[in-house]
Amino acid sequence: MLADILSIGDELTSGQTVNHNAAWLGEQLQLLGIRVRRHLTVGDELDDIVRALQWAHNGCDVLLISGGLGPTADDLTREALAAAMQEKLVTDADSVQEITAFFKHLHRPMPAVNLVQAMRPASARCISNPNGTAPGIAARWGKCQVFAMPGVPREMKAMFTQHAVPVLATVGAASVLRICKLNTFGLGESTLGDRIRDLMQRGANPSVGTTVHDGIVSVRIYARGSPAEADALIKSVATEVTARLGDLCFSINDEPLESVLVELLRQRRQSVATAESCTGGWVAELLTSIPGASVCFPAGWVTYSNAAKTRELFVDAHLLAAEGAVSQSVAAAMANAARQKAGTNWGISITGIAGPEGGSAEKPVGLVFIGLAGPDGVDVRKFHFPGVRAQIRLRAAQMAMTMLRLKIIGRTFEDVIPS
Amino acid sequence: MLADILSIGDELTSGQTVNHNAAWLGEQLQLLGIRVRRHLTVGDELDDIVRALQWAHNGCDVLLISGGLGPTADDLTREALAAAMQEKLVTDADSVQEITAFFKHLHRPMPAVNLVQAMRPASARCISNPNGTAPGIAARWGKCQVFAMPGVPREMKAMFTQHAVPVLATVGAASVLRICKLNTFGLGESTLGDRIRDLMQRGANPSVGTTVHDGIVSVRIYARGSPAEADALIKSVATEVTARLGDLCFSINDEPLESVLVELLRQRRQSVATAESCTGGWVAELLTSIPGASVCFPAGWVTYSNAAKTRELFVDAHLLAAEGAVSQSVAAAMANAARQKAGTNWGISITGIAGPEGGSAEKPVGLVFIGLAGPDGVDVRKFHFPGVRAQIRLRAAQMAMTMLRLKIIGRTFEDVIPS
Repeated sequence: MLADILSIGDELTSGQTVNHNAAWLGEQLQLLGIRVRRHLTVGDELDDIVRALQWAHNGCDVLLISGGLGPTADDLTREALAAAMQEKLVTDADSVQEITAFFKHLHRPMPAVNLVQAMRPASARCISNPNGTAPGIAARWGKCQVFAMPGVPREMKAMFTQHAVPVLATVGAASVLRICKLNTFGLGESTLGDRIRDLMQRGANPSVGTTVHDGIVSVRIYARGSPAEADALIKSVATEVTARLGDLCFSINDEPLESVLVELLRQRRQSVATAESCTGGWVAELLTSIPGASVCFPAGWVTYSNAAKTRELFVDAHLLAAEGAVSQSVAAAMANAARQKAGTNWGISITGIAGPEGGSAEKPVGLVFIGLAGPDGVDVRKFHFPGVRAQIRLRAAQMAMTMLRLKIIGRTFEDVIPS
Repeated sequence: MLADILSIGDELTSGQTVNHNAAWLGEQLQLLGIRVRRHLTVGDELDDIVRALQWAHNGCDVLLISGGLGPTADDLTREALAAAMQEKLVTDADSVQEITAFFKHLHRPMPAVNLVQAMRPASARCISNPNGTAPGIAARWGKCQVFAMPGVPREMKAMFTQHAVPVLATVGAASVLRICKLNTFGLGESTLGDRIRDLMQRGANPSVGTTVHDGIVSVRIYARGSPAEADALIKSVATEVTARLGDLCFSINDEPLESVLVELLRQRRQSVATAESCTGGWVAELLTSIPGASVCFPAGWVTYSNAAKTRELFVDAHLLAAEGAVSQSVAAAMANAARQKAGTNWGISITGIAGPEGGSAEKPVGLVFIGLAGPDGVDVRKFHFPGVRAQIRLRAAQMAMTMLRLKIIGRTFEDVIPS
């Protein structure tokens, strides 16, 4: 069961509008157990739309169209669909009534042009629009089930849910797609991929792939089959993947790192304070983004200047002069002070060079020291993060949270994350 | 001059990831005067990619491809392009060197699989990736100029700008599209739209529209014509829009709010310290995201617990007990203390209820007090922000920066942003 998604509109091809509709429809089809083969986007040009329809029609069982159903001159979906299906456009009497009633209800005169919205290919049927004037179109075109819907997201979603889902649910029912997303942090995508290479064979079921977003490397597992089969396949492969990746994996349910860390602290009734320089408060912001963080996070410092490090966190001014703010000793001092002042179990510190300025031969941009103070003393680790300022800061924040996460669960950092 | 944009990746077809790359590339082509005919998106399936390449190649002059250049088994772009072009895949010696050097710079061993990233169709050339390991590919395929780039947005954009733009700039039409994006904060989109409604007619040149993203309401102006004509049209309409919106508009060049604020402080040699509760460090993080912020931002506090407010910012414990942390007096005390301790010109404080828990009849979720301490004393304003936790926190951070921005430029807050 294959589906194509066709989106129509100049605002899409020109990039003025990001195509969220196609992503939403793609996900909806996945949930229905229908595999999405392709997305196509064309502008408000009749020939382009007709050609796209013809290409899509060839080989897919479901074709979802959005856009081009308005009442203006550049709304060409009805005409293009009729041309591609090689049928006449006819007026749908029920739709005429609905459109007329819609304007009456709004106490607004109906522009005559809106009547074109009641037209459809001869063999198709109109489907009503709960949230607008444009009826959609449902048609059987050869072996392809077609739904044409408005481009306005709210209208498209309501129409799809109300009219398309009941039809498609019977079509994709026997076989569903289950998705499992495991999140990891600490290894690059290719190095991680090496550990699960044999599971990532093309064409396998389940299929396994990796993606990266904002430093988090995710392993996605897709399994097809009956609901029971798909669940069993997911479980089996996920178990194997987590066995191989160990504690690099911090979530099997696509949770964010900060959420997992706050939950860990909460379960153990532990708390943490933060002392940040180059990350500027990012760790504190991430921790507090989680509702209920207050039980495990009472205080954070952003000691951006050396004076602030000395005044707020008692970092010795001579030490700062001798070794510089970006050093192992200063990271240790910051982490210890935050922990002591706040009275928490843990103290995290981050001091580094986020760039683009500020680097040197001995201390290049990307150099970051992360300290973790706890009941047994303070660990400081040195990192070289790649990329621009924003990436260096985010990686540092994520690595600091990872250091704490691994410490809490009793793992030695270097055993999990090789240098 | 027609272009197609092909995006590759299961995460796109399945809807897991919204296709921002295609929109960005579409806009880039518009700026170069090249019309975008179609967008195609296919999954990590060799046959689908090959067919999409063949269909796109037929009739377009420029083909931009993104995705599928990673080192794993589901990265098929090189293979598919070679197959579609009916050429062999060969190893590019320069790329081998570049990839090896990239890993060396990171002090990380290079996985052997990364060497596949140095392969390209025989007649093509590799184009370097400033921000990652995957070289791109540039090729002349019949009359079609092809660029294949990584799917990672930062890498794709840098590569496109560096390698594709110089080539495409010579082939684009004489008529270009110029875009101007004015950013505002403080009014909702429809209320703002009312002020410029007459400028927003459909089909006009320039065309004017509004968009909202993360609380920032932007006015976008598109003008078509020769470069000189388009520039003149933009200038004329932008002048009118800024005259009507006044200081609601904080940038005429799509700069972020924090960048504008840091620049304002820098120009006036002023500094600010932050005392945040519910925003958890977000203001400090935004300010420090701007390179060079250290000249105007030395210190921030995240006093998430009442004890931290008392211990670090000397907020009277009796006051906290009597009025609660979310109150005018506590906001004033926090702002004053941050300013005094840090020795800055300004002190910002934010205390509120981000939700979803913690609200009550008198103090509902979304209630936030923002304090601004300065040479003339401390102002505290009370807000009710809508939405969920993340939105309330971000709006509060943005409003705090806006309060400071308006104060610095000598505007009365209530004159610019009506309640």
